[in-house]
Amino acid sequence: VGEFDLLRLIRERLPPAGPRLRLGSGDDAAIVVPGGATATSVDALVDGVHFRREWASPAQIGAKALAVALSDLAAMGAEPGEAYVVLGVPEDFGEDDCLELLDGMARVAGETGAALAGGDLTRAPVLTLAVTVVGHAASAEEFVTRGGARPGDALVLTGELGGAAAGLRLLERDAPVEQRPYGHGARTSTTPIARQLEPKPRLAEGRLLAKAGATAMIDLSDGLGGDAHHLAEASGVALRIDAAALPIGAGVAGEDEDPLELAVSGGEDYELLAAIPESRLAEALAQAAGWGEAGLTRIGEVVAGGGVEIRRPDGGLLEATGFDQLG
Amino acid sequence: VGEFDLLRLIRERLPPAGPRLRLGSGDDAAIVVPGGATATSVDALVDGVHFRREWASPAQIGAKALAVALSDLAAMGAEPGEAYVVLGVPEDFGEDDCLELLDGMARVAGETGAALAGGDLTRAPVLTLAVTVVGHAASAEEFVTRGGARPGDALVLTGELGGAAAGLRLLERDAPVEQRPYGHGARTSTTPIARQLEPKPRLAEGRLLAKAGATAMIDLSDGLGGDAHHLAEASGVALRIDAAALPIGAGVAGEDEDPLELAVSGGEDYELLAAIPESRLAEALAQAAGWGEAGLTRIGEVVAGGGVEIRRPDGGLLEATGFDQLG
Repeated sequence: VGEFDLLRLIRERLPPAGPRLRLGSGDDAAIVVPGGATATSVDALVDGVHFRREWASPAQIGAKALAVALSDLAAMGAEPGEAYVVLGVPEDFGEDDCLELLDGMARVAGETGAALAGGDLTRAPVLTLAVTVVGHAASAEEFVTRGGARPGDALVLTGELGGAAAGLRLLERDAPVEQRPYGHGARTSTTPIARQLEPKPRLAEGRLLAKAGATAMIDLSDGLGGDAHHLAEASGVALRIDAAALPIGAGVAGEDEDPLELAVSGGEDYELLAAIPESRLAEALAQAAGWGEAGLTRIGEVVAGGGVEIRRPDGGLLEATGFDQLG
Repeated sequence: VGEFDLLRLIRERLPPAGPRLRLGSGDDAAIVVPGGATATSVDALVDGVHFRREWASPAQIGAKALAVALSDLAAMGAEPGEAYVVLGVPEDFGEDDCLELLDGMARVAGETGAALAGGDLTRAPVLTLAVTVVGHAASAEEFVTRGGARPGDALVLTGELGGAAAGLRLLERDAPVEQRPYGHGARTSTTPIARQLEPKPRLAEGRLLAKAGATAMIDLSDGLGGDAHHLAEASGVALRIDAAALPIGAGVAGEDEDPLELAVSGGEDYELLAAIPESRLAEALAQAAGWGEAGLTRIGEVVAGGGVEIRRPDGGLLEATGFDQLG
């Protein structure tokens, strides 16, 4: 099957044009009529760097690539819009694999309200994905950046930490992997391997936090320690985090590694860390009671200075970066 | 140098935010306030598939990746807006190479008015680029798709054909390659190797053709024969092209291959093929008198039916596809 035939098969799986997406794949460019402002993010996933084909099905790889990209839109409080996919395909990744990968991506698109609007297909030495996602808001001011946290704000976190890192350890140790093809049990699973292979972008939670007055927000891709530092740096503030308050994921405590270390240093949980004024906190926590699985937890506060301090229950420092300006 | 340091160095090369680009690289997503409608296209370039590192400098590779992506916006008649770049970097492509590549890209961005608004950086087994470009227009109707050509329209072509394919033959034959680093003679060069390594997106020409009433437009990436067929198919029409009218690029006739074959079957010229009503043709050709190097040539007409017919000066068929419906 040549490139054009495969592109045709792929196009048949794409949604029809809607009120915003006026013209999808098949022309020189997709035509979109956006609202007041857009948020755009790109993410790359390369076999052997971000995933391993022996650990995940093509559908899981496609689903994760789109989910990870959409997580950046969640962190802006954006409404998901269009996704564009570059697929670099090696010799041993067949047409069926490509279509299964696209089906996994289409499932996440359907679940989140995103539309696959275009893409490019090429040969590559290893399976390579680059996903561009565009989110929408009525105005640029509705988006939540990393840079607006103010001393006195509360720090809140969606969901649970450490699961994706614990799942990665299990996969690396050659623990039996339950392959979860499209549609099979993945949606409600919170096991570490599901957290690693099938992350869920917190899009609804991000939009609610934006509406509840979040002043800064970031999604946890590198790990709480590093990503909290990015938020602190962009906002010019310091963050004090209480390690005892951190919600640890199911199955993380069963590992021989310190669960708190996994929660703080392990990446890829794709939960949202947000700063929110104390005056709006009760409202946000009340809203979050309806979120089901994800939940919202207060884990600390924003103070003057610069850097991040994560303190253990016994008072010892779990992690501290750049607190030299703190009085 | 780690990923974060390199990202910082890259960010320092990006333009400051402007009225449309409210927030560039460095947050979870770039924030843009678009006008009425956007046109979005993605293109991938992989070492060994789309280019070879031994033939082109990092600056030339970066410049070509962005130029090729922008060519799709030219074919929509769009005003260039933002570009997002995924860079997959192998072990032997150093920090200086990355920065030179970005400088080549930034040069094209500066020349065309596009803004490098974000990106992602990752390890990859070979140099891999994925570029997403977003173009703008006041309304979706201002964009020119492939699908609006009508019988009776004239067919026009910007610039000259065959140069990029002739340049590729020269490179493949190990002819001496004059490396053209950033800023050195590349801008006005129309030699075959420059056409291959440093294509120029016909953005201004595309916008003028859109304003002059073009009913359908496509950029020639695969070659005139194949791309004309895409336009004919999308519009549901047939195209008759007069091979004698085709503008052949400088240096193409010097090859032992038939220059017309190179012009019709050779790809990567990135000229624009447009259909335009006969009543607007004189206006378009008059405008094009001011285009300098590029120029505009009438090469045929749109007729009822389906497919593409390219006839030689002696009356023989050079290429014909899908003319079974033609009476």
